[in-house]
Amino acid sequence: MAPKRTLIVDCDTGIDDALALLYLLGDPDVELSAVTTVFGNTDADTAALNTLRVLELAGRSDIPVAVGARSNWCGEAHLAPYVHGSDGLGNTNLPAPTTTPSPEPAAELIVRLARENPGSTHLLAIGPLTNLATALLLEPELPQLVAHVTVMGGAVRHPGNATPAAEANIHNDPEAARMVLRAGWPVTLVPLDATMCEVLTEQHQRRLAECGSPATAFTSSILDQYFDFYERDIFGERRAACHDPLAAAIAAGDVEPVLAPVVATDVDTGDGPGRGATIADVRGQYQNFPAQEGANVRVVLETDRTFSDLLVDRLCGAPERAQQVA
Amino acid sequence: MAPKRTLIVDCDTGIDDALALLYLLGDPDVELSAVTTVFGNTDADTAALNTLRVLELAGRSDIPVAVGARSNWCGEAHLAPYVHGSDGLGNTNLPAPTTTPSPEPAAELIVRLARENPGSTHLLAIGPLTNLATALLLEPELPQLVAHVTVMGGAVRHPGNATPAAEANIHNDPEAARMVLRAGWPVTLVPLDATMCEVLTEQHQRRLAECGSPATAFTSSILDQYFDFYERDIFGERRAACHDPLAAAIAAGDVEPVLAPVVATDVDTGDGPGRGATIADVRGQYQNFPAQEGANVRVVLETDRTFSDLLVDRLCGAPERAQQVA
Repeated sequence: MAPKRTLIVDCDTGIDDALALLYLLGDPDVELSAVTTVFGNTDADTAALNTLRVLELAGRSDIPVAVGARSNWCGEAHLAPYVHGSDGLGNTNLPAPTTTPSPEPAAELIVRLARENPGSTHLLAIGPLTNLATALLLEPELPQLVAHVTVMGGAVRHPGNATPAAEANIHNDPEAARMVLRAGWPVTLVPLDATMCEVLTEQHQRRLAECGSPATAFTSSILDQYFDFYERDIFGERRAACHDPLAAAIAAGDVEPVLAPVVATDVDTGDGPGRGATIADVRGQYQNFPAQEGANVRVVLETDRTFSDLLVDRLCGAPERAQQVA
Repeated sequence: MAPKRTLIVDCDTGIDDALALLYLLGDPDVELSAVTTVFGNTDADTAALNTLRVLELAGRSDIPVAVGARSNWCGEAHLAPYVHGSDGLGNTNLPAPTTTPSPEPAAELIVRLARENPGSTHLLAIGPLTNLATALLLEPELPQLVAHVTVMGGAVRHPGNATPAAEANIHNDPEAARMVLRAGWPVTLVPLDATMCEVLTEQHQRRLAECGSPATAFTSSILDQYFDFYERDIFGERRAACHDPLAAAIAAGDVEPVLAPVVATDVDTGDGPGRGATIADVRGQYQNFPAQEGANVRVVLETDRTFSDLLVDRLCGAPERAQQVA
């Protein structure tokens, strides 16, 4: 039996962060060693409370949750209540969790766990990259201590969502994103190019509602707000992209991308109209992406577009498996 | 009978510029009132000589050719001999033309012709936009004097070619491109998204060689160098993109794009990795591009991918029609 893959998830919970966490909690091959939170979909403190709520639903309140950056280094924090609801969880207004966040700051927790388990921790970042960049400043050897970094973020051949050029996680802290992509560790970037093609539908939502566990009832209910947003602003119909869950499944090793070249990738940190754009050198697209000097990031451009089925399968099985683990 | 469409072509001749000029000279519905040249594929003076050579081949040495900008306003001029040959025409090393360029600077000629024929001149720019921007500085009313501007340039959902983010014409003078796109006149942008999908093959080249006129023998011979470049650096096989001819056919009204939303479009004029990127707001792509505030440019994202056949048809008929005109 292969050993479990140990993950730290850095997130801004968030509707799709909640789905990603529940997906990972139902994964028999994954051990979630900690969750750290950052501003983004909601503020970092609400994100921590939402994370604790999700862990409680899954019977996994043993997993530590640490609060991290409340803004980027420029003092800015663009939140997204119009996407995720004012409570970050689709205006479901759940009761307060029975547990509380760890007193340890997120970046310190990341560094401590990486030092305690050198070479075995996978980092999954599904919010702005401020905590990871701060951890790199705290521990310059972090790239040697971590096994792999998977980031949900960016837009390469797909338009941005925060601006015409930039995806929200990267746009929220372009300087941190540049530092993370350039740190010299193995990075997989899961941009909108892939996530916008893995789509949850009303049929998926009904399946979740019918599964009958508290966790699936919760996931079904938070999708209402998410579909509202996607119908109004993006797709013109009630379906939604699987951003964070797809990145989680790739980090867990469950989904093998169809197209994921390793290419030179940078972030626009200027203040022009491209601020926060992820500039990946995909000019080799006509020749199956030949090896490239300066290639630093594995960029997931395509998956097989069946992930949302896998996600719902997993979520429907999740409570049982979570109890086995507990 | 509809009146002819009057075009001024601003170009950096260049293999595909030569094809575009010959295409337009064979168009019974187009009157080419002048050609102006700019640095880009080759230097502005060589571009003028090459243009005179092409006009001579088509029996149209009556059309004035004026030399324009020899660099952008930063004093830079990135030329592309590795694409177009050291002579700009595929190292065919043609003899000097029998005619000479006009003494009038390109931008002044553009302004003069626009003033003489208010509302009827179409500008087709298939090189860096320095001459058009200079003309806008000389005559701030130019946008009201010109019927339409068509620009070959940019890359939206397609990677750049000068850099990972930027197409060469825009990258060669981002400040000028920004000025041209923002000038308030009707602009159609024909980016790599469209031009890379309209492809000339060796079969087309053979057809041109077999047509038997001096002009088609010339077009066949200049394609050798172009295919060399595209085989080595882009496609891995002997075929080439129809950048400038496609823009010419769209400016002439011969090709109706399949997808060409009018969207807010800007140019990155910073000095980061996105310098020269065309940032077009195509976030409406999932809802058929609803009307957008600030929409300033018609961006051709797709054509029907049959243009190269039309181009070769036209070039094979061109000498005859050119002689009829003369």
